[in-house]
Amino acid sequence: MSHQELIERVAAVVGRDACLCEPDEQARYLVDWLDSYHGRTPIVVCPGSAEEVSAVVRLCYEAGVPVVPHGGNTGLVGGAVPSASGEELVLSLERLNRVLEIDATNYTMTVEAGCILQDVQEAAAEAKRYFPLSLGAEGTCQIGGNLATNAGGNAVLRFGNARDLVLGLQVVLPDGSLWNGLRGLRKSNTGYDLKHLFMGSEGTLGIITAATLKLFPARRQVETALLGLESLDSVIDFFDSTRGELDEFLSAFELIPRVGVEMALEHLPEVRDPLDEPYPFYALVQASTSQTSLQLGEVLEAWLGKSLEDGLVTNGVLATSEQHARTLWLLREGCVEAQRLAGPSVKHDVSIPISRVPEFIEKATRAIEERMPEARVVAFGHIGDGNIHFNVCAGEDQDRDAFLAEAPALSEPIYEVVAALDGSFSAEHGVGQQRREPFYTYLGDVDRDTMWRIKSALDPKQLMNPGKIFYERERCDAPDYGKDSMRRWN
Amino acid sequence: MSHQELIERVAAVVGRDACLCEPDEQARYLVDWLDSYHGRTPIVVCPGSAEEVSAVVRLCYEAGVPVVPHGGNTGLVGGAVPSASGEELVLSLERLNRVLEIDATNYTMTVEAGCILQDVQEAAAEAKRYFPLSLGAEGTCQIGGNLATNAGGNAVLRFGNARDLVLGLQVVLPDGSLWNGLRGLRKSNTGYDLKHLFMGSEGTLGIITAATLKLFPARRQVETALLGLESLDSVIDFFDSTRGELDEFLSAFELIPRVGVEMALEHLPEVRDPLDEPYPFYALVQASTSQTSLQLGEVLEAWLGKSLEDGLVTNGVLATSEQHARTLWLLREGCVEAQRLAGPSVKHDVSIPISRVPEFIEKATRAIEERMPEARVVAFGHIGDGNIHFNVCAGEDQDRDAFLAEAPALSEPIYEVVAALDGSFSAEHGVGQQRREPFYTYLGDVDRDTMWRIKSALDPKQLMNPGKIFYERERCDAPDYGKDSMRRWN
Repeated sequence: MSHQELIERVAAVVGRDACLCEPDEQARYLVDWLDSYHGRTPIVVCPGSAEEVSAVVRLCYEAGVPVVPHGGNTGLVGGAVPSASGEELVLSLERLNRVLEIDATNYTMTVEAGCILQDVQEAAAEAKRYFPLSLGAEGTCQIGGNLATNAGGNAVLRFGNARDLVLGLQVVLPDGSLWNGLRGLRKSNTGYDLKHLFMGSEGTLGIITAATLKLFPARRQVETALLGLESLDSVIDFFDSTRGELDEFLSAFELIPRVGVEMALEHLPEVRDPLDEPYPFYALVQASTSQTSLQLGEVLEAWLGKSLEDGLVTNGVLATSEQHARTLWLLREGCVEAQRLAGPSVKHDVSIPISRVPEFIEKATRAIEERMPEARVVAFGHIGDGNIHFNVCAGEDQDRDAFLAEAPALSEPIYEVVAALDGSFSAEHGVGQQRREPFYTYLGDVDRDTMWRIKSALDPKQLMNPGKIFYERERCDAPDYGKDSMRRWN
Repeated sequence: MSHQELIERVAAVVGRDACLCEPDEQARYLVDWLDSYHGRTPIVVCPGSAEEVSAVVRLCYEAGVPVVPHGGNTGLVGGAVPSASGEELVLSLERLNRVLEIDATNYTMTVEAGCILQDVQEAAAEAKRYFPLSLGAEGTCQIGGNLATNAGGNAVLRFGNARDLVLGLQVVLPDGSLWNGLRGLRKSNTGYDLKHLFMGSEGTLGIITAATLKLFPARRQVETALLGLESLDSVIDFFDSTRGELDEFLSAFELIPRVGVEMALEHLPEVRDPLDEPYPFYALVQASTSQTSLQLGEVLEAWLGKSLEDGLVTNGVLATSEQHARTLWLLREGCVEAQRLAGPSVKHDVSIPISRVPEFIEKATRAIEERMPEARVVAFGHIGDGNIHFNVCAGEDQDRDAFLAEAPALSEPIYEVVAALDGSFSAEHGVGQQRREPFYTYLGDVDRDTMWRIKSALDPKQLMNPGKIFYERERCDAPDYGKDSMRRWN
């Protein structure tokens, strides 16, 4: 089928206005927001309903045209950008942005895939409920993309990853059939759990068009504290005790190293040194609850007082106002922004059993020091989930181009340490295009073979988001498929 | 391959002592504990390690012999019993009963599939941690079976179903290869989530040999209360308010109807009427926490006092001791035992959105009254999860045989109401052999077709636990497969 024919037939389904064919209309769909991946397409389609998504995908199935689902385009691994072949249709979910139902008593809400995450949070709050998924991109990212990539974020410690917040899904399958699994049930054991298969599959098995989400009681009290600690081991000891004592109130436990604070102080005028003297490490602790029968601030203060007395922490501050809490969180978020301003860096999003995080950071840092002594390691993030953002930034006086030339080779030794400690090369960002090489290097053959069997069974024509997670179809079909796992990634 | 040859080859792998071939040795593996399903087998194998399971399954794969995995044999739907064909090998996991690792700081433990659930709970408690899965059969059931069937139980409201308590799995696949997915990571987005596919698949995709489980801080305070309520609507209103106020402390919310209490009073000498006068409905509420900075009893007492004042509940009692709490739980558990003593019954394990539970119980009860006015409906269970055990018991003066003759026809109108209210015909018990008819009647064609594609891709010879969830292979391969969904179940 020629591109023109395809466009005609798609337009007959969704209307001409929902078909973007001009370069300027298409531009923002063809590049990821880090400007790392670029693609081409004959047409960007914006269907207005799950039925239209279904009809477009059926058309593509019949014509053998690959489909790239596109949400808020905030992913970090190139999962929503088409290839440069110019043969893939881009399907944007942006017009599927309705909240379909809120059932407050059932603690559920059903939303279309294109709803912005922040709109979902706000709709829940209006019904006096709480939807816990929260991440930096929440003003832009779409819930469908969050689920397709099983997003993590700031509330995983207490509420789990995106997949843990879902009771039901509606998905358009590769042949265009519509699977309606929208159910607001806490328990249903009726065969294989299909929703968990689609979540995290990054659009390679089907297109999520709607979801029924779990809600929680509205947060009525939130308290934040920042603690100074002398070593990574003491951070872990403090986490261990805090989790045991605060239990279900503990909703975030983040690590910030001194180098991250210093970068933030240097590059962000609104950041202040949080304690009266510097500490090698800081733990940002958040507690929250919907309960009103107790004073959460007193609970946290008592615990921190005891931790100071017992020598678990050396110094600390409890936020006295929402504004103060925001200042403390700014250190954590400033860590990201300041690194961007400080120059080029190579980023890794890894996870490790919590008990082995100090060993990981020490060994991985040593591996970098051996290879590039002038680089600066900033290892920070969701330490309560064992999720470390291990970033290697160019040294202050290092030549930018020299750093960028050598940087790709820095990932390998880090992933080797991750693998040796039973960790994961992708904690919350997914595989997409960027992490296909570690996917082929570090995932077991049985894992990958089983996944490929499922992919082949559900998408036999290999039309759903090709080249994401797995290599392009040509490579997957080649007789040496999977044998090139020793090639280095870039 | 003759049975004798199979036995020789299996014995060469696991040793002669691990092969049970005599009728008296085999007997307990060939019938479920409700005595509803009976099967035959040439050999019951008890391998001693995952590697031995792998070798036995590989042998079966090569020889084309079906394999029935067998855990604690406490299932309620005939999932662990071989067919009457006498051609299926039974593989018992009972010798895989080691706790492999407890990592208290990481809040994880790794156990073999044959560990008894109660032993898992106790091993966690020794490490000052809490493993929340808890159900009536916990002294006998095995964790591998709990995961293969995604067990529910008493702590789902706060901690989720069995699948929500798992971070990693080890599974022997249909061709005998060993998938090692034992990881203690809170976050890992590296392709499709295979563990969620195996959990709840009831042994039809592979055999779980070990798991890495999530742990929680040890419970240091547990409080229990029983409330009397005037209507189902008021039970739901009280649940709604209680969930909002007690939030993360609320760990169980169970419904007991007066008829259940009366049966217990009649048949169980140790049961006492809990309140000074009878109420149509009772809610059993449990709160728990690991925190010591507050008095949980005071929190619960204050909330119940306010609920009485506001007229949310009519009467109630807060347990004053562990012994007293056990007495209250005895009403809930006695409900099950008393029904057994009261005569024959037909049981249903359904789930419904919590907001629609009153409508479900009213409509389903009316449907039974129309068909069999002398029967007694006992609808009780995990109402906080929307999970109702809807049991129809023979009337006090009803003829036993007459009841049993008509009883099978009572399920259809109940499942029709469930389907109309977007509920599930199997909440926590699974499909097994018993619920295959509703599986074919009420599950959507797209659901079943997608599941069957996955089954065919991972188990192309259809050797894993045949006749469970899906019909026997002969029927599945027949040209009219899936077309007989209008046949009635029995």
